[in-house]
Amino acid sequence: MQVVRSKLELKKILSSQTNKSIGFVPTMGSLHEGHLALMKKARLENDFVVASVFVNPTQFGPNEDLDAYPRDETKDIELSENAKVDLLFIPSVEEIYPRKVSAQVKAVLAVDVLDGKARPGHFDGVLTVLLKLFMLVQPDRAYFGQKDAQQVAIVQNFVSDYFLPVDIRTVETVREADGLAKSSRNVNLLEEERNEAPVIHRALLAGKDRILSGCQSEQEILGAVQEVLQDVTLKLDYLALYSYPDFKPVTDFTKPMVLAAAVKYKKARLIDNEIVLPSGGEAECYEQ
Amino acid sequence: MQVVRSKLELKKILSSQTNKSIGFVPTMGSLHEGHLALMKKARLENDFVVASVFVNPTQFGPNEDLDAYPRDETKDIELSENAKVDLLFIPSVEEIYPRKVSAQVKAVLAVDVLDGKARPGHFDGVLTVLLKLFMLVQPDRAYFGQKDAQQVAIVQNFVSDYFLPVDIRTVETVREADGLAKSSRNVNLLEEERNEAPVIHRALLAGKDRILSGCQSEQEILGAVQEVLQDVTLKLDYLALYSYPDFKPVTDFTKPMVLAAAVKYKKARLIDNEIVLPSGGEAECYEQ
Repeated sequence: MQVVRSKLELKKILSSQTNKSIGFVPTMGSLHEGHLALMKKARLENDFVVASVFVNPTQFGPNEDLDAYPRDETKDIELSENAKVDLLFIPSVEEIYPRKVSAQVKAVLAVDVLDGKARPGHFDGVLTVLLKLFMLVQPDRAYFGQKDAQQVAIVQNFVSDYFLPVDIRTVETVREADGLAKSSRNVNLLEEERNEAPVIHRALLAGKDRILSGCQSEQEILGAVQEVLQDVTLKLDYLALYSYPDFKPVTDFTKPMVLAAAVKYKKARLIDNEIVLPSGGEAECYEQ
Repeated sequence: MQVVRSKLELKKILSSQTNKSIGFVPTMGSLHEGHLALMKKARLENDFVVASVFVNPTQFGPNEDLDAYPRDETKDIELSENAKVDLLFIPSVEEIYPRKVSAQVKAVLAVDVLDGKARPGHFDGVLTVLLKLFMLVQPDRAYFGQKDAQQVAIVQNFVSDYFLPVDIRTVETVREADGLAKSSRNVNLLEEERNEAPVIHRALLAGKDRILSGCQSEQEILGAVQEVLQDVTLKLDYLALYSYPDFKPVTDFTKPMVLAAAVKYKKARLIDNEIVLPSGGEAECYEQ
């Protein structure tokens, strides 16, 4: 595996990979099994696999955890090597942002809810860095985790609207044995927070069960989630149900939905979601 | 020459051009010798030349001349064929904008002056359509006329900031025998306007002469331009001097500058400019 830090070197190596399909896994490092699942899929589907480790400052708000975001480059290199990545790109901030951009990319669809609402400008930063990275790597396929469901939808829309020649591939959320979604931010949880956090997924599953049993009341579905959370002290940043992948209020409970939550802990903000593909069964709850 | 109207067909033909360099001339049609000069340069520098004819609605403001913009597809096809273009892409609006974009591209640098100020959102529309077209055509080189000096600078900044793998090439403004810059919009001039319009270029040249003779007073330079214009009735939309290519107020008269004007006629708005590369000669005018 080659570790590359400059655009020039990256370009040089990529230009010698003629006629090879390129798979790309953009990450912010602190790699965990979620990232490794992306790399594994990229490895299976492409001739040449590029991963990047770049904690992108433009997707963090002024009061967010940019400085506290965990970094472990040595381990990232080791894990990428083990995952049979061919090229690991670890650019500096100056390499990606030599100056303030002369034109901004602003997400406008599906951003008035969930993380788009809770983190103003977050998805603008995500699209900005992805456009840059996609132009540098020119991948045939790029890999994203389903944990960031809204990100996947926004990136997919962007790629589709601007005809970017890259296929966006998603991989299911990888979880700890107790159900907690793997996240680089989990290392910033206090012990009692880490013990409590699996309740987020259990609560989402309770809501999902209610939908799958045919419930068509948003209030009752969210109530089922809240019920599981009632005995714990965690601070919900949001809990919501939307149509998927367009993130609009649900009007048809027989079509795909996303049940999503964000939790604010002391030094970490966690997100999780369940995509629900209803079977269209009988309603078993009271309609509003 | 192949005439192609769909993205799918375009992609199919381009994918068969393996290992050929691609030159791209994006136009809004109503081709004139300015466009032909771009095509000629593209022909010289590339194996395969793509041109597009697309009157991009998003770069027109609500009170601008989108509907009045001249269109002559038959002639465009004939002229492109004569210019040895290999592929002419003439998409419909629906083909390029199947829906409202989910993310906007917003120019923020060098847009508070000249056409950026006079036409709010104009350059956002230009960058939006160019990102789409660049992604579809994936050219090695793209060709723009120096008449649209601010556009060239903004496109160059965008390409540079987002690492787009395309080389932006410019071609000098082509003029009528009487000095009027060739423009698709010239056909919308009334007879008396057409007779008068060459004065725009003569006036800019008078200002340029003043700079080249060493004048370092913006007021006096613009005054020299105004003097030529004093006997005609045309309505100036703007007349200004800026540093080039960053379009900032001039602080150093020994560095490149752009002297630019826009004129509003009844059914056409014309722009023109002169790029000035000072020799650094003695000042021959009074300092302010």
